[in-house]
Amino acid sequence: MSNSPPDDRLEQILQELRAFVAERAWAPFHDPKNLAMAIGSEAGELLSELRWIRSEDADAHCRGPARPHIADELGDVLITTLMLCDRIGLDPIETIRQKMAKNAAKYPADRARGRADVP
Amino acid sequence: MSNSPPDDRLEQILQELRAFVAERAWAPFHDPKNLAMAIGSEAGELLSELRWIRSEDADAHCRGPARPHIADELGDVLITTLMLCDRIGLDPIETIRQKMAKNAAKYPADRARGRADVP
Amino acid sequence: MSNSPPDDRLEQILQELRAFVAERAWAPFHDPKNLAMAIGSEAGELLSELRWIRSEDADAHCRGPARPHIADELGDVLITTLMLCDRIGLDPIETIRQKMAKNAAKYPADRARGRADVP
Amino acid sequence: MSNSPPDDRLEQILQELRAFVAERAWAPFHDPKNLAMAIGSEAGELLSELRWIRSEDADAHCRGPARPHIADELGDVLITTLMLCDRIGLDPIETIRQKMAKNAAKYPADRARGRADVP
Repeated sequence: MSNSPPDDRLEQILQELRAFVAERAWAPFHDPKNLAMAIGSEAGELLSELRWIRSEDADAHCRGPARPHIADELGDVLITTLMLCDRIGLDPIETIRQKMAKNAAKYPADRARGRADVP
Repeated sequence: MSNSPPDDRLEQILQELRAFVAERAWAPFHDPKNLAMAIGSEAGELLSELRWIRSEDADAHCRGPARPHIADELGDVLITTLMLCDRIGLDPIETIRQKMAKNAAKYPADRARGRADVP
Repeated sequence: MSNSPPDDRLEQILQELRAFVAERAWAPFHDPKNLAMAIGSEAGELLSELRWIRSEDADAHCRGPARPHIADELGDVLITTLMLCDRIGLDPIETIRQKMAKNAAKYPADRARGRADVP
Repeated sequence: MSNSPPDDRLEQILQELRAFVAERAWAPFHDPKNLAMAIGSEAGELLSELRWIRSEDADAHCRGPARPHIADELGDVLITTLMLCDRIGLDPIETIRQKMAKNAAKYPADRARGRADVP
């Protein structure tokens, strides 16, 4: 690790997350099983923000008074997910790109166009 | 937006995600309520990979034969979470950083050291 | 425990669940942490059945071709939740009734009428 | 519906749940999509109670000071899941029994004995 911060914003935040965990000596709590539970827990909190909101109101809801709460839950989902990637040695960007390639093969643009399933 | 790809890796992947959704005309499905459900669904798939694994085996499990499956689920959690951030106009890095600041205040390093709760 | 099956249908099913676990020697896997993960995993599968379905189509969707899948996921959520109650010595009906009393106090009928939040 | 309460405890609680919803005029909020989100949200809260607890401490944890919180979350998972069953016309006991039959076929006792997967 160089002494200067990395140019890449995601790499910067990964370094900050590692420092955050190290300062609290939280590594023993952050095994992959516990982190998967943390991701599920934070995803559940996000669901609770939107469960009674009508779909057609959901965009406006996310830009209204609930916005800070929704941002907090999204932040926690991202934090715990990046922590798990980092714990097991997965580069988040590469992980996303490889899954996107699989999703693209599963949902070809011409057949998936405008439909959530694929004929 | 310039014609050349951005230097930042996360900004690159966000552009790719936007193109992926646009090519399939999936914006109508991707309201915040549906995306929150997708995040919860993908988090559930991640949980299923680790639910019967013992904590002390969890790191090795994530580097064994199940690794591609776990990477796929982490990829899907990241993809859907970034899509929701993007849908509602939140910068993912800024969202993480603001939540980390709140978490740091809630769990001061000296008091949270080596414990999951705070006295 | 008597030799004859109990009259109560829930008590019957609890006995069947206990036998199911015992026949497979699954008790070591069914500690409360693992069962909580199993519940989260099954809840995620249920979410996946409805994430792209419009709210106004959701009732019909649950009575259409997807009905057996939705019933399966609801079955698994109930099975794993009853198993966790039983593991830790909670009577499910009593657990529901005590939480309903708290919910009734939190959402008084007159003030909660027709609204998901309470003023 | 008869004037006397049913003998079956589950049927009693289903009647109480229906009355609870009716008194608050919550049926419009309780479409299957919203209830699936509520189940996911409550499952997430349960996960949060156990995510940092070691597996070998999980049983004791559920009988310690956190017991009322865990009972509350289990109560909410059961309440929302029964509400969704009831909303779409599924008998909970029959739903469990049918899924148990599928699980028994998928995990034959002799081959699943003492292992979470099946060879």
